[in-house]
Amino acid sequence: MIDFRSDNTGRAAPEILDALIRANEGTALGYGADEWTARLQDRFAALFETNVRVFPVATGTAANALSLAASSPSWGIVYCSEIAHINTAETNAAGFFGGGLKLAPVAGSYGRISADALAAALTANPPGQTHRGAPAAVNLTQATDLGGVYSLDEIGAVSEIAKRRGLKVHMDGARFANAVARLGCTPAEMSWKAGVDILSFGATKNGGALCDAIVVFDQGLADGLAIQLRRAGQVWSKMRFASAQLMAYVENGLWLRLAGSSNAIAARIAAGVEGMTGVRLIAPVEANELFLELPPGAMDALERDGFQFYRRSVTLARFVCRFDCTTGEADALVGSLARICEDKAQAAE
Amino acid sequence: MIDFRSDNTGRAAPEILDALIRANEGTALGYGADEWTARLQDRFAALFETNVRVFPVATGTAANALSLAASSPSWGIVYCSEIAHINTAETNAAGFFGGGLKLAPVAGSYGRISADALAAALTANPPGQTHRGAPAAVNLTQATDLGGVYSLDEIGAVSEIAKRRGLKVHMDGARFANAVARLGCTPAEMSWKAGVDILSFGATKNGGALCDAIVVFDQGLADGLAIQLRRAGQVWSKMRFASAQLMAYVENGLWLRLAGSSNAIAARIAAGVEGMTGVRLIAPVEANELFLELPPGAMDALERDGFQFYRRSVTLARFVCRFDCTTGEADALVGSLARICEDKAQAAE
Amino acid sequence: MIDFRSDNTGRAAPEILDALIRANEGTALGYGADEWTARLQDRFAALFETNVRVFPVATGTAANALSLAASSPSWGIVYCSEIAHINTAETNAAGFFGGGLKLAPVAGSYGRISADALAAALTANPPGQTHRGAPAAVNLTQATDLGGVYSLDEIGAVSEIAKRRGLKVHMDGARFANAVARLGCTPAEMSWKAGVDILSFGATKNGGALCDAIVVFDQGLADGLAIQLRRAGQVWSKMRFASAQLMAYVENGLWLRLAGSSNAIAARIAAGVEGMTGVRLIAPVEANELFLELPPGAMDALERDGFQFYRRSVTLARFVCRFDCTTGEADALVGSLARICEDKAQAAE
Amino acid sequence: MIDFRSDNTGRAAPEILDALIRANEGTALGYGADEWTARLQDRFAALFETNVRVFPVATGTAANALSLAASSPSWGIVYCSEIAHINTAETNAAGFFGGGLKLAPVAGSYGRISADALAAALTANPPGQTHRGAPAAVNLTQATDLGGVYSLDEIGAVSEIAKRRGLKVHMDGARFANAVARLGCTPAEMSWKAGVDILSFGATKNGGALCDAIVVFDQGLADGLAIQLRRAGQVWSKMRFASAQLMAYVENGLWLRLAGSSNAIAARIAAGVEGMTGVRLIAPVEANELFLELPPGAMDALERDGFQFYRRSVTLARFVCRFDCTTGEADALVGSLARICEDKAQAAE
Repeated sequence: MIDFRSDNTGRAAPEILDALIRANEGTALGYGADEWTARLQDRFAALFETNVRVFPVATGTAANALSLAASSPSWGIVYCSEIAHINTAETNAAGFFGGGLKLAPVAGSYGRISADALAAALTANPPGQTHRGAPAAVNLTQATDLGGVYSLDEIGAVSEIAKRRGLKVHMDGARFANAVARLGCTPAEMSWKAGVDILSFGATKNGGALCDAIVVFDQGLADGLAIQLRRAGQVWSKMRFASAQLMAYVENGLWLRLAGSSNAIAARIAAGVEGMTGVRLIAPVEANELFLELPPGAMDALERDGFQFYRRSVTLARFVCRFDCTTGEADALVGSLARICEDKAQAAE
Repeated sequence: MIDFRSDNTGRAAPEILDALIRANEGTALGYGADEWTARLQDRFAALFETNVRVFPVATGTAANALSLAASSPSWGIVYCSEIAHINTAETNAAGFFGGGLKLAPVAGSYGRISADALAAALTANPPGQTHRGAPAAVNLTQATDLGGVYSLDEIGAVSEIAKRRGLKVHMDGARFANAVARLGCTPAEMSWKAGVDILSFGATKNGGALCDAIVVFDQGLADGLAIQLRRAGQVWSKMRFASAQLMAYVENGLWLRLAGSSNAIAARIAAGVEGMTGVRLIAPVEANELFLELPPGAMDALERDGFQFYRRSVTLARFVCRFDCTTGEADALVGSLARICEDKAQAAE
Repeated sequence: MIDFRSDNTGRAAPEILDALIRANEGTALGYGADEWTARLQDRFAALFETNVRVFPVATGTAANALSLAASSPSWGIVYCSEIAHINTAETNAAGFFGGGLKLAPVAGSYGRISADALAAALTANPPGQTHRGAPAAVNLTQATDLGGVYSLDEIGAVSEIAKRRGLKVHMDGARFANAVARLGCTPAEMSWKAGVDILSFGATKNGGALCDAIVVFDQGLADGLAIQLRRAGQVWSKMRFASAQLMAYVENGLWLRLAGSSNAIAARIAAGVEGMTGVRLIAPVEANELFLELPPGAMDALERDGFQFYRRSVTLARFVCRFDCTTGEADALVGSLARICEDKAQAAE
Repeated sequence: MIDFRSDNTGRAAPEILDALIRANEGTALGYGADEWTARLQDRFAALFETNVRVFPVATGTAANALSLAASSPSWGIVYCSEIAHINTAETNAAGFFGGGLKLAPVAGSYGRISADALAAALTANPPGQTHRGAPAAVNLTQATDLGGVYSLDEIGAVSEIAKRRGLKVHMDGARFANAVARLGCTPAEMSWKAGVDILSFGATKNGGALCDAIVVFDQGLADGLAIQLRRAGQVWSKMRFASAQLMAYVENGLWLRLAGSSNAIAARIAAGVEGMTGVRLIAPVEANELFLELPPGAMDALERDGFQFYRRSVTLARFVCRFDCTTGEADALVGSLARICEDKAQAAE
């Protein structure tokens, strides 16, 4: 079987597990008061070229929901894409941790939200009204849930609209590495320099094992978040084993090599399917995911050929490239798709 | 330095980290739909001699708070010891995840709750009243937060009172292994056979690294809990790396060997301080913790001798034994205490 | 000024305030244990031809949010119309009282939800998935937020789909009286006989003063709700003053006379504007509200003529008829609209 | 029957219901945007001699819980008396509306909290720790739940300790009028001048009918509270009927006359029982409540004599005086107690 189901079905990068082993010596204070976690703070400050607070957490859902809970009062409104992960796939964790905050969808292309649409939503919800809730934050998924990547200008435009109304800007960076690798920019440029206040920094989907992180740029959010994380059961007593993973993840550019690799595989497949009869990419491939409309029966045929992927509808398939997908696997998928679609086209004649 | 600060300052058992490495091959479905997690279910069913659902979670706080949230409506009362960890050290996580549930202290000895005191509390809160909240669950910490261990009869007595009023019984087993090792009973005898409905199964304090677990005996609680865990950001997408740790933890009796070792060290220290002038154990030593009242200045002197421990008050010190504490370290502590206390006694003459 | 702004800008029916005065004698137990509240239970059981529990509450928001909190676990999904009051105008009270439950819009006409659209939404959210939340309840607004009224068959069709999946059916009856008056059916037919489990029974908009009520048909919901209401600060200690209002409201058919009157005024205006150039009703007028698209400038002109109403957009005006609106006021509005629109039409030629 | 059960079993002062009738004319904007509510703001600013925001609410539970939710983050600790109403009788509404905040008992006499005990509690919970929650607010019940009244100095002393750590000071003034009447001070002196930031201003227990109020002195709390109240279903659409009650309540000193009357009745009873054999006041009578320890069987005998009251334990009875209790009723109670206790004393010889 060749697995394109998700970037969370894969292995961890060996460097990350090795770091766990290396951290297993001596004693260390619990709950993040250890040396590994102290070094993590410094390492991320260097990586992001500014003062940050970094909080390792178990999952991206925790990172997103607690970031938003820190950014909004419980009666707040958080604007996001209709298809944002926080809106479709996290069991309303943001609403739960946020004490009743509400997600409000904003239009945009390929999983982005548009600055103009955000501006219109804010205009429709003027200061002083109390019956809808108070605009509090905006969420950007970078890379998006349709495999798109915001440009730096697009992030900046959304942030500017948000900041005028005092909204916090949260970036769901479950695939932050893939987006940085795509844009070729610095982590700073894609986050605080573009107006991001707080970041869900994903590692798991890109070769991590058991932790992601929250990176806080707006220092006013950090102390409250620290206590919310403790209450949320997201502060490991043996935190060193989480911090060590995150250190290894960014060491020597590992994270960007891994993301560059999965991006390249996705691009290779995208190039391969270009012009194929009956096959249509429903969104530009800018990171490591492909969303393909396929002819009837093609998905069954692909599975018979040994490929694994997710069906989003009867005609829409999602393929996700992991850091350890090979060009051989990519070419096999393209080859299989080509053969299947040719057969379908001939049968249709 | 010799570290008696906590059982969470220590290393992980190497077997547990090795299991992570071994689990790092091939692809696997996310969010617990993998083979490792399936095997974990079977392994724990065998371990507990009954049908169970096992949910790996990141921390003991998550295990406790989500177990209680599953056991109580949001307007429920959860009875616990005044000094229970859920009441003193988890930032009211139970109240948060429980949507406003309230912890109500019940008297008892050495961190236990007494069945009689529970019965009295329930009598004072009769069915039908609405101004206090509804009795919903009872929490037992086993081993207790003063290093005590409930006997099987004591657990059974509390459970019986609880069950008459329809309360769920939750055991906070952060040190479940230490208690099983102490009692020499089976895990089943100390849990569901004694009336426990849901168990926080600790591993971190006893050689684990990054996960504990919830073990559900009352199957009616499991489905709701599963979705609450997802919302709580406690379901890793690469769950195999958690499940593999828990498998290794119980494999070949590792967990009980580790707990037996830390218990023995604590007992050795307890025996050593017996009769020492000015030194008083404020609770019987039944697991791996010691709570010692010491003469004025003794704690400073101990620190000068290179020992690390927690000060609970100006005269009360806590010493916790880890699985990898040595008899040499125990004897060094006893020796140092003996010398310090003799000095104090002479100075007092 | 002639006021068509809302049915909550109006007076209370004098009978209702008189009942307050009459209840002001002697002493009575607090928190609903009084005789007035006991009689209210019997009176509503007779009114609804079945065993019910009636809970007076301060507002419709409380009635809706607490009804839904009683009908759903905190991780539940409540299906409703996109424009339902609970979704647009209650500050996400349902999400708050529901501990994080989520509202999910379902399509339909004129503020209704369609049974087919509900069925499709449920199919897309199959049992066992945990990443979206669990389908738990459906909310119908009767009369709808666009002045429409569900037929009994429409309610029944939605309920049937809901019940197949175990969902509770909640009716937001802020204008329940208007809908009963419109359909000419019994309260029972429009509620439990059509599958409704729990009802927000509005009084305030139809001549009430300071209370609405929750009417519970599914007795399994009542005890939990009782305690939630107490915690929500919705149980008056001098409950008799609320119960007396509700008794007076339904006494001798007062409620249906009041609703019949406001419905008739709305119908009179609807008939009057039929065929007027430049004026368009965007929804059939089935209760006491009219939503009119008007030519540019018409709203300004109407205000200059002394009419009060709400602007929903630059071209859409809402007019609400209260129980004490007069035919003279209705005719004045129609006359003014006719003149304004004729002027606009001439100016456009 | 002569009723001493509670001050919420009684009638409303006729002036308050009359105000409802008088407010029932013309139309008015909903949700507090009416003229009555505007006048209420001015009236209370004059009454409290400072700028305030006044929010009518349905119940004292709502006033308390929402005041505290406005004063604390969801991970906050609110210090209060062990026997405070918020801790014993409001179904943990503060914990619910506060999103998981926790009440922490502080010692003191007769339902007060002591400034020293508060200082000690704060010292034990230093800044920066995260495992207990963050000290956020302190709650004073004035008059207390044992019928005591804080002196102005006592309030000031607690506030001073609180303010040093940045805690908000909330006063539960369910019997605020009784305390003001007792102290003979101004409302300002007993609230913001003594450090109170936010006040639950009770009316119901002192001749009100269907509303209490929150009075906000710390203006930074008001805007968030406004939206929380809306979400809580505590903002009546026909708010004028609530505001009119509160206006009438304070008009011409009505509230203090009523409270003075019930206080005087309580004092009369207290004087009457002084020295009675077998009868003991367990707390000084400073407002309108008496807590009496009585000989075995005395409570049964009192009930046979036609008196109603609450049993707090087998030997402890609570008697509450309403604004409309008469001296005749007081004397009857004293007479009955004297006879019963004499009988008991004789029987004991």
